[in-house]
Amino acid sequence: MAAKTMEGLFHDVLKDIYFAEKKILAALPKLAKAAENPDLEDAFLKHRGQTEEHISRLEKVFKLINRKPQSKACPAINGILEEGTEMLAENEGSATVDAALIAAAQAVEHYEITRYGTLHSWAGMLGYSDAADLLNQTLEEEKQTDETLTSIAEQTANPAARAAAE
Amino acid sequence: MAAKTMEGLFHDVLKDIYFAEKKILAALPKLAKAAENPDLEDAFLKHRGQTEEHISRLEKVFKLINRKPQSKACPAINGILEEGTEMLAENEGSATVDAALIAAAQAVEHYEITRYGTLHSWAGMLGYSDAADLLNQTLEEEKQTDETLTSIAEQTANPAARAAAE
Repeated sequence: MAAKTMEGLFHDVLKDIYFAEKKILAALPKLAKAAENPDLEDAFLKHRGQTEEHISRLEKVFKLINRKPQSKACPAINGILEEGTEMLAENEGSATVDAALIAAAQAVEHYEITRYGTLHSWAGMLGYSDAADLLNQTLEEEKQTDETLTSIAEQTANPAARAAAE
Repeated sequence: MAAKTMEGLFHDVLKDIYFAEKKILAALPKLAKAAENPDLEDAFLKHRGQTEEHISRLEKVFKLINRKPQSKACPAINGILEEGTEMLAENEGSATVDAALIAAAQAVEHYEITRYGTLHSWAGMLGYSDAADLLNQTLEEEKQTDETLTSIAEQTANPAARAAAE
């Protein structure tokens, strides 16, 4: 095996998050459908549109480094989504479903935040300034989505679950 | 299946992160051994000590809610660690190994940040104020570890990998 370069490592992780974004895009309608709270349903549907844009940005980044868009199986997102599916199954039909959905979705957001944070940092170091800008736009949107989910949890979903149990 | 309560959901996620912390504790010596940069090796060893404390705090939280410490298999951490093992295998022996290790470790930290953030919020809502304090202490340490890893990456590991490739 040839020694890996930072360019090679950047390309590997780009393929990993490209795989992850496509899995997330496929999962979001199921999350939206399961949500009880209309704000949460809206947040998932809005994030589906953003995720399409994130995939398109990744395709631009591949082009900027003269590579074809390509996926690499990502065990992390598979595990995170498997856990989310379990949480949904265990809470569906209970007043806890929105709290469980939010917790599952925030685990996805945090995975994306760490990967885009890393890719943005590496792109800057490698002198890929246009790629770094695109990756940073997505990073900021993932952080914003995480904050929106926290806000919905604190304002509505968690108190609703609590009230239903009393 | 009985309707889930927020107390039940809190207990489930507590078992999930208890499983995850024990898996992380077992993985950290391998990360420390693989690190080339002495600051990174130190960071992993320091975090091993902190992880022992995080496990002990979780056991206190179980006690505060009158439950025995118990694990629940956590597909997310299994997937994140599997991906980290792959990244290590693909970069071992290359100048990129520390950058890959840091990226893998930050995915672990972000998973912990999201789970402790959720548990801290739920503990507060449920009136488990002592548990909330313990969970917040760990949350802050996970955030600090993530920042330390970013700082090592930016100051040393990434530039070293870059220089070695030139």
